[in-house]
Amino acid sequence: MDTAAPSPPSRRSRLTPERAHELFTAVLELVKESGYEAMTMDAVAARTRSSKATLYRQWNSKPQLVAAALRHHKPGNTTGIDTGSLRGDLHELARHAEEIEPDTELIAAVSHAILRNPELGEALRETIIEPERASLTAVLERAEQRGEIRPGAAAREFVMHALVGVLPARKIIDDRFVDAEFLIRYIDAVVLPALKNS
Amino acid sequence: MDTAAPSPPSRRSRLTPERAHELFTAVLELVKESGYEAMTMDAVAARTRSSKATLYRQWNSKPQLVAAALRHHKPGNTTGIDTGSLRGDLHELARHAEEIEPDTELIAAVSHAILRNPELGEALRETIIEPERASLTAVLERAEQRGEIRPGAAAREFVMHALVGVLPARKIIDDRFVDAEFLIRYIDAVVLPALKNS
Repeated sequence: MDTAAPSPPSRRSRLTPERAHELFTAVLELVKESGYEAMTMDAVAARTRSSKATLYRQWNSKPQLVAAALRHHKPGNTTGIDTGSLRGDLHELARHAEEIEPDTELIAAVSHAILRNPELGEALRETIIEPERASLTAVLERAEQRGEIRPGAAAREFVMHALVGVLPARKIIDDRFVDAEFLIRYIDAVVLPALKNS
Repeated sequence: MDTAAPSPPSRRSRLTPERAHELFTAVLELVKESGYEAMTMDAVAARTRSSKATLYRQWNSKPQLVAAALRHHKPGNTTGIDTGSLRGDLHELARHAEEIEPDTELIAAVSHAILRNPELGEALRETIIEPERASLTAVLERAEQRGEIRPGAAAREFVMHALVGVLPARKIIDDRFVDAEFLIRYIDAVVLPALKNS
């Protein structure tokens, strides 16, 4: 479905939802292929059969376009996990690992650019980090209510760091992407003992 | 000291150690500034007052040049730490965190490129990961000899992942670089309880 015909004049040209989805998907593909810094607006225009003028009129700048694409992007949904035990819930989170690989690539592709571009970091946090944090917080709250972890467990503050960090660490250290089997062993060896003994 | 005069003909033109150091330092600065993928050999030639022909004759390609620069790069040296306790040793490692910030930037700058460039990943592991792993292995061996951790502690396999991963995770999640104070709290809340209870 190609709706890339020139938009009628308007304060801000309208994109159909289908066209916006197509465009944002292409932007994230290009970011993953080239890395954020090497990706050009020319490449976006070519891939999406848009004019650069349209892209700039709509989003003003490359960081704003990429931030919008990240916000449009819906990562694997881990809300609603509730198996009845902390270990069961964390393992269930780990089983979503197949959905994590594209996110690992995306994080790698923008992780340098966010050092200099706060807007991009904000978009990454909003779209990938915060939804996972909300799922994790619900899991930990229930574990506390069941008495599986103490209310003040020091490890709680760091569970996100331990779980998010292992994605790039696995790639850098072992040259492999995280899979569910690895994540489950990591959770059993590091995350659970820390939560239950801190 | 500028020794960039044209090299005399040779199988492989010789660089003085000073000139090589200057050149590799400039390459890593450029990688940190632009990200690996956006960095061009033209920029390297301009910054180092070399000709592109010289760069290609010496290193053949951008990945080979950057890999050579990484290999030349000496990160903060953490060997020889021995305080008499596991906690003391890990805290001492954490106090080297001030030296880690440039490495965090470097890892971020190449972390996307290593997905497609095994040679670059190899150089990163050899120069940043392996020296840290050797220090950590020595620390854990002594802790085992003192009876502080059991011989088969499951967390041992993952200590590097937990410690390396927290560098990008802290930046992505909290928009801050890791410092010694944060690392020490992370070690006390996550790494030590996991090592002693897995």
